[in-house]
This record gives sequence, structure tokens and C-alpha cells, in this order.
Amino acid sequence: MKILRVNMANLELRTEMVKEEYRFLGGRALIARFMLDEVNPGCEPLGRHNKLIFAPGLLGGSQISSSGRISIGAKSPLTGGIKESNGGGVTGIKLGRLGYKAVVIEEMPRDGQTYLLHITSAGAELLPATAYWGLGVYGAVKKIQGEFGEHTAIACIGPAGERGLHAAGIANTDGDGVPSRYSGRGGLGAVMGSKGLKALILDDTGVKSLQPVEPVSFKEAVKEYAQIMKESPVVESFRVYGTAGMVNVTNAQGGLPTRNFSTGRYAQAEKISGEKMRDIILERKGKPAHACMPGCLIQCSNVYADQEGQVIVSPLEYETIALMGSNLEINDLDTIARLNYLCNDLGLDTVETGAALGVAMTGGLISFGDKEGALRLVKEIGEGTLTGRVLGMGATTMGKILGVSQVPAVKGQAMPGYEPRAYKGLGVTYATSPMGADHTAGSSVRAQVNHASAEGKAELSRKMQYTMPVYDSLGFCMFISVGLGAHPEVLTQLVNGQLGTNFSVAEIFQMAKDCLAWEREFNRRAGFAPQDDRLPEYFREVPNPIVGTVFDVSEEELDRVHGDK
Amino acid sequence: MKILRVNMANLELRTEMVKEEYRFLGGRALIARFMLDEVNPGCEPLGRHNKLIFAPGLLGGSQISSSGRISIGAKSPLTGGIKESNGGGVTGIKLGRLGYKAVVIEEMPRDGQTYLLHITSAGAELLPATAYWGLGVYGAVKKIQGEFGEHTAIACIGPAGERGLHAAGIANTDGDGVPSRYSGRGGLGAVMGSKGLKALILDDTGVKSLQPVEPVSFKEAVKEYAQIMKESPVVESFRVYGTAGMVNVTNAQGGLPTRNFSTGRYAQAEKISGEKMRDIILERKGKPAHACMPGCLIQCSNVYADQEGQVIVSPLEYETIALMGSNLEINDLDTIARLNYLCNDLGLDTVETGAALGVAMTGGLISFGDKEGALRLVKEIGEGTLTGRVLGMGATTMGKILGVSQVPAVKGQAMPGYEPRAYKGLGVTYATSPMGADHTAGSSVRAQVNHASAEGKAELSRKMQYTMPVYDSLGFCMFISVGLGAHPEVLTQLVNGQLGTNFSVAEIFQMAKDCLAWEREFNRRAGFAPQDDRLPEYFREVPNPIVGTVFDVSEEELDRVHGDK
Repeated sequence: MKILRVNMANLELRTEMVKEEYRFLGGRALIARFMLDEVNPGCEPLGRHNKLIFAPGLLGGSQISSSGRISIGAKSPLTGGIKESNGGGVTGIKLGRLGYKAVVIEEMPRDGQTYLLHITSAGAELLPATAYWGLGVYGAVKKIQGEFGEHTAIACIGPAGERGLHAAGIANTDGDGVPSRYSGRGGLGAVMGSKGLKALILDDTGVKSLQPVEPVSFKEAVKEYAQIMKESPVVESFRVYGTAGMVNVTNAQGGLPTRNFSTGRYAQAEKISGEKMRDIILERKGKPAHACMPGCLIQCSNVYADQEGQVIVSPLEYETIALMGSNLEINDLDTIARLNYLCNDLGLDTVETGAALGVAMTGGLISFGDKEGALRLVKEIGEGTLTGRVLGMGATTMGKILGVSQVPAVKGQAMPGYEPRAYKGLGVTYATSPMGADHTAGSSVRAQVNHASAEGKAELSRKMQYTMPVYDSLGFCMFISVGLGAHPEVLTQLVNGQLGTNFSVAEIFQMAKDCLAWEREFNRRAGFAPQDDRLPEYFREVPNPIVGTVFDVSEEELDRVHGDK
Repeated sequence: MKILRVNMANLELRTEMVKEEYRFLGGRALIARFMLDEVNPGCEPLGRHNKLIFAPGLLGGSQISSSGRISIGAKSPLTGGIKESNGGGVTGIKLGRLGYKAVVIEEMPRDGQTYLLHITSAGAELLPATAYWGLGVYGAVKKIQGEFGEHTAIACIGPAGERGLHAAGIANTDGDGVPSRYSGRGGLGAVMGSKGLKALILDDTGVKSLQPVEPVSFKEAVKEYAQIMKESPVVESFRVYGTAGMVNVTNAQGGLPTRNFSTGRYAQAEKISGEKMRDIILERKGKPAHACMPGCLIQCSNVYADQEGQVIVSPLEYETIALMGSNLEINDLDTIARLNYLCNDLGLDTVETGAALGVAMTGGLISFGDKEGALRLVKEIGEGTLTGRVLGMGATTMGKILGVSQVPAVKGQAMPGYEPRAYKGLGVTYATSPMGADHTAGSSVRAQVNHASAEGKAELSRKMQYTMPVYDSLGFCMFISVGLGAHPEVLTQLVNGQLGTNFSVAEIFQMAKDCLAWEREFNRRAGFAPQDDRLPEYFREVPNPIVGTVFDVSEEELDRVHGDK
């Protein structure tokens, strides 16, 4: 396995062998270690000293189902700390197959030039992106596919990333070539934009999947894995309702963000629920179940079409529905799908953008429920107006500019679709994760506990936070945890079978501890302190009226999550 | 001496005796200790847990010349750390005479009501501010003087503070009743606005100056003090050219901020110099020398009129000329004076606003040298447009929104009129002061050294930073240091004579050490780390073309300024 370094200042491309100490690191853990080793934590995120890293998981490129996620990392312009944001689609798979442990983008073009990075089995090259820069994600990817082939995997930014907006993400193409699998969080699209890189294009023609070193035990593990996933009732729900199945669950528990996180229950939740979505999709001949990467055992994705059967967006997911639906009191899925499409095309994280719109509504820029107003504001991001730039910087900046203190964000990054006073375990994760507010850093939502009680939630969050990096580093989708979570020995056997290693379960999980330690050390050197591991005052002082409590996990408990003061 | 606490939530006013441990603290040091004792450093600056403190210096209310400055403090919305901003005029003198060591504004009005705080020798009262809220500073003060008498001292905010803009300051009236002595920095006007307090009105009718406890030695010391100041050549220059005399000095040394701190020399500096200003003032029958508080031995202030002899603004000072003149490539004093007047009336810090305009020019919002554009943008702050709100949030926010990394600011607060690559001692102060970029926290400009060399500058800054809190805590204007700086024994004798104490010089200077230790501890608890004690990358990577160097004081030296890692 090798690492490709791309210097955007002198346009040098250099391939080097992976250092021994990186050999059994992948994805998130590799990014954490690499950033700590090579990037000055004090650097400006959109300056030349930051590095943007694309890293498949340790299993990336193998034939293991749902193990092909791509981890993208850098110092985040949104949080000012380390960021790893992983996405589905086929970028991770193809990068792994091509034999790259990581692609590292360094420096900045000195002359304002823009580039495509094209990687094939023959090598890598930088090509001018003049004809692509400025295009929306869908248009750019179509043009790239026309030029480089429909079989390529593409990671691409839109105008939001080009303009350095902090809500900008990076879009990855799925198995159908649709660029809507987002490494959305942390503003990594802006880092890619600052490097003058419009797209990473991966062509794995003539290259096969990475073969398991121990085929016998591997085959056994794969069989068990498939069986476990098949038996999971959660997987069944994902396939039927997509992630949107969560709407009715969180609404019932008082944790569906509504009216800029004022409350946790939306009177019209039924209209934006997974059940409703399934009905609409079936009626309009869309696809209620769809795989973001080939061979997925879960298929939580979907294809959402309008009344004429024209695709509006694929997929429509829970986080987007929560942040751009109930959170804005927008009560129809068609509008949410249109907002989603606009964000995808501009290259924006829907969570951050939805949260920023919610803050804008509290601040009176537009009214709650104003569908046309929301669409118009997002379009302003594309037009590059000052209002558009403010919105494109995310919820924290919007709150600052409008003087709104009710801002659902930690470390500058907006909370996803779980209200933290109703889901206190997730609230602890939002507060204490080195990633900023992020459910994928350690979600407690599926635990069978009283989510609105503070008791035991710091410990629950800790447990989840020290589990997720394993998935994020192997390249696994976090949803496989609903099955494999209870079978770490199968997960371990899959790793050992593929890589020919002899890791124990404990050794696999040590990767999570190392990963978090490196991330927290990076953040410490970047200037983070315990005070940064807090929810905003609003959540500690104003109760969620449905569950009747404020966020009351103590500061001492928050500080103990990572075992230090 | 007593402390007045004003609770804006329940409208309770409570007078209490000063705690023994606060007895020999005043101004900045008292604020530092008080904030550390009473305010949660993690609180939101514009939320109910922050406190706004008005504190005269330890000598406030005495007859000692230039010892009547008012210190105003709180957790700053601009920096997120502790802030003390002192201003001239008569607020500090009258508050001292009335026997208050501090006035502490707590909580926030729950119903959005607004108030005036009126203090006389008979006591204090809160009165509705409905008729005043929304008025500019000049209009509000005129109306207050009509109602409460022209002899009152007034500390007042403008629309910028009312709207929570982070560049908002607090205006204090001078001896002529003109509200232009600003406690400008750190966004304290926004804190006052968040408390629903439009103005503090002090009526000292029937109250005398505080008498010295040891009149004989006091009289001796006052005489020596007056003689020292009289003999200082710098004082003479202040009286002739005002602080604007600095323009030609810094321009010659390559340290006059020009074109958003791109360089340190302005080709048209002569047109905005102190010499030019004096000629204009004399020609137009203004006042080239003027005292901001009665009996001042320096009189660096002035009254600047237009061609018809109508006053435009008083005073016109170096920092404003640098930030709104050369920094914007605006080459005439009349325009600068008009910008200054607008800022004063809206209740804005001219340093922060000028720096934000410079960043806006780099970002292409308007062009360098565009006088009408600059005036129009500042007017937008008054109109409350989104552009106005962005500008009113200061330079760092402007840079973020426009994607400009060339932002002259530290800890979110803009640099004043000294380019830090040319004045490396001040650069160290900008970087390491708990106040954010602030020349008054420890200026090295008058030292006889090679300012553009990094050598010895950390030590020089340290020396100045550990001197200034003495002046800031006694209530002295920092300019008396040009005389008394070399005579700490006279300063000590003044203190002992007035208070009847027996402090040694070392004990007086211990106040500075304590003050900085408390401030830094507050900031540490607020989440500050060594990484926050840095200049922006721009200044470390791009040379000031006049002096030919970048800011090259090492991070290790910066970390050693306060004697810790």
C-alpha cells in the first residue's frame, strides 16, 4: 500500500510507501495520526499549511459488504479542530483497490489555478479544471463522466467549497454515478476549494478487489456477517423506510428538532415521516430501497421523485428531513427534497445549512415554515451574495451575525437531528467529541434507556465514542453496528481474514482509543480546552418542553468522558 | 467605599460595603479579581450570567491630574475572554467622588425593557429608557443632559450596542459634556445593550473630591508630578499635535498600517499627519489642544471643525487616523473625521470598525480609497442591514464572511495603529495580552530600540504588559507614563499620600502581576490556550515590504512572556 502526495503549489505528485507505523491504520485513525504527525495544529484551515487527506478504511477495496466508506480529513474551518468526515459511495472502494492508503493534498496553488486529480492504475496526474470550476456538483460530475468515463468514482466540490464557505462538504458518487454521498461535515469542501481542487477522479479499470489473505476463515466470517445482518430487525426497517424511519421515533420521544431546536415534537411530523416518504416514493415509482455502494446488505438509501416521476434527489435522509423539515417547520417532503437537491448541487452539508436556516428564522430573516424563503436563501449561496455567504458559513456564524444565542452547535458545528435535552447521551457526544456536534461520533439513540435522564449518559456516550472510530477506521458503515455491534469477534475475524493479521478483539478496539487520543491531542495543540466541551447556555437553561428538562449532565461528568480534566 | 449592584431582571439595586480584599484594588485589577470571583468564565458574553462592571481607578475621585479614567469590564463578546476597556472624560472622576468602587450590572431584563441608571449622592435608581433607546449617542446624551442636567457625567451606548454588535463601545462624556471618550474595545457596548442599559448617569452635585489622607506628602508628590510632566518633551508633542503626531513617526518606521496592514508606509501620510491636522484646526478656528478631563497636564485631545467652523468631531486621534486613513487609503482628514463622528454616534469602536473596513476592501466589498463607500457602509450599521451587521461585528467576522485571511486581529479583536512586523514588541503584546490585540495593554513604540528586529521584543513587551495594569488600576491615563514612568517613587508617593497607605514601589507593581494572573486565569477557564497567543499566519508568512521582515518572534518566546507554557 502506498500514499500519494500532491503538492498544489509546485504541482509535484509523489508516491511513497506507507510507513510501518501506519500499516494497520486506515480511515479515521490514519487521518488522526497523520494530522498529528504532519500538520501544525495552529495552522489556518484554509491556508497552505493544512492538508486534505482522502483515506479508505483498513478494509477499503476488499469485497466485504459496507466496508468501502471514504474518510476525508483535515483541520476544519468550521470547528478549528481536526475533522474526519466519512461518506458512502464508491470513492473508498476504488481508492482501496488502486492500492492507496491515502491521498494527501498539500499546499495551495500560488496562481489561483484550479485542478482535477485523476488517478488510474497507471498513476496520477493533475489536469486543469478551468472548464469545471464554478459548475454545480451535478453538472460538474456529468461533465467529468463524459470526459473520463461513467465508471469512474468522483469526489467533487460545488460552488460552496470553491468559495470557502464553512458549510461546504465533498460529494462522492454512488454505484449509479450519482454524486450525493456526502462527506458533509466540518467544511472539508472549503479546504478542498482552498487547495484549488475541484475533483478527485478514480479509475480502477483493470484492477480487482483486494483478496483476503486467509480465504478460509474470511469466507466463514463473511457468511456469519451476512447472516447477522439479515436477522437484524433494524436493517429491515432501514430497507423499508430508510433512515427517515427515525422521524416517528424521535418525535415520539420528544427529540425531533423543531423550530430551531425550541422543542422536540413537531405537530406535523407525520407528513415528513419515513412511512409517508415510502408511500410517496412507491406512488411515484421511485425506489424506497437503494444501495449507496454495490453489495450493501442494508440499502438505507432511496430515490425520491416528483409527481411526474422525475428524480428530485437521491437519497432523502433523516438528518436532512429533521434539519430542513421539522426544524424549519416545513411540512412537506417535496420542499425538503428540493432544498436537499439545491444543497447537494452547491456542495453544502444539509445539516449545517438546515441549522443555519433555523437560526435565521429565529433571528427573523425569514419566518418559520416559509418554504419559498428557505429555497430563496439557499439559492443566494449559489449567487454569492453577502446573505448567501453568511448562510453558507453555518449556524454559529448566522447566530453571531443576527445576535441569536439559540444556536444548536458545539465547537462551531451544528447539531444533527437529535435534540440533546431529549437525547442526553447524544448531547454528551455533541459536547465532548473532538469532531464538534456530530451524531456519527457516538450515537446513543438506539440504546434502551431513558434518554431524557442525565443518569449514566456520560458513560453511554463514552462507550459509543470509543466504538465508532473502529468502524470509521475499518471503512465500515456505522449502520452495520446494529448487527455486528454485538459480535465483535466476527468483525475481528473479518479483519484478520482479509489482512492476514492476528488481532484480538481488544487490539481492534485499541484503534479507537488511539484515534481519539490523537484527535484530542491535535485539538489541544490547536487551542481547545475543557470549556470547548460544552453545550450552548440555551440548552442548559431552557427546558425542552416535551421532556421537561434542560441538558443537565454536569460539567464534571463531561470532563470525565475522556478520562481527563 | 461601596459597590452598587444592579439586577436588571428584578430591578433590585443593592449597595454593599467593599470586601476587605478589594479595598486596595481599583479599575482594571478590581475588574479582573471581581470577574474571576463572580462570573463563570464559560458564560455567554451577551447572556444573563455575564456582568458589566464600571470601576474608577484606585485614585478615581481624587484631585490628582489624569487619574480619573473609568475602567469598564466584562467578558467580551469580541474575544470571548475578560475585557477591561478604560476611557477618559469625567465618568471615573464622578463615580469616585460619589464613593463607588464599582457599579456592577447583573442579569438581563426579562421583558425586553430598557433603562437608564441614575446615580446621585442620594442613591441610585433605574428609570425607563424608552424615549432614549434607538437614539444615536450624541442625541441621547443631549436629551439626557436636558433632563438630568448638563453637569452630569454620562456613559452611554448607541444603536450598535443596543443591537449587540461586537464592535460596539461605551461613550463617556468629557468635561464639556461631549460623549466621545470611548471605552471602545472588546464590544462592551454590546454587553451594556444586552443588559438593556442605555446610559449610566452620574450626578455628583454637593459632593467634593476625595481628600488626601496625608496632605503634606501628597502635596509634595503632586508638585513633583506636575514638574515631571511639564519637563517631558513627549507631553509637549501631545499638546501641539495630539496623538496624531504619531503618523509621521510610524510612517517613517514602516509601521503605519496601510491598505489593510499590507504595508507600513502610506505615500500620502503627510495629508493625514498631526502636523497637517494642526494646520487645519488652526485655520478653521478649532482647538489643537484640549483636555478630556479637567486639570489634565497633557491635553492630547482636540476639536476638529469643518471649513465653516462647525465641529465635525472631538477628538480626532491617531488610532482612528491610522485605521480609517492609511489603512483604507483614505487621504483626507475631513473624511476620517466624518467616519469618526458616525462611529461615535452609532457607538462603535473606530479601531475595530476601521480594521473591518480594511478587510472589506481586501475582500472587494468596496475599493481602497473609496471614501463614499466607507461612509455608506458605516451608515448601513445604523440602518441595521445584514451588511451593516457583518461590518459591526468587526474585522475577524468580516474576514470570515468574505473569505479573507489577511485579518489584522488577535483573539477576535482588531489591531490598533501599529503594524506588528514593524513594531515587534507591540506584536508580542497583541499576541499575548489577555485583552486581545490592544496597544494599551503594553506598548513598546516609544522604546529606543530597533523595532523591526525580533530580538529582545518578548522581554520588552513583558515589561510593558506588567507595567500598564498599574496605570489602568490607579485610574491614570497611560500617557502619564511618558513622565512618571521613570519616577515610580513619585507615583507611589501619590498613592500613599491620597490613601494614607504605606505601599512600596514593589507593592504597587505587584498589582500588575496579580491583575494579569487573574485575567489569564479567567481566560484559561474560558477556554483559552497557548495557541490563542499567536498572530495570524499572514503576519508570520508575508513580510512587511518596508521593513522587509515577517513577524518572527518564536512561539517559544511568546509562550514565555507570561512565564508559563
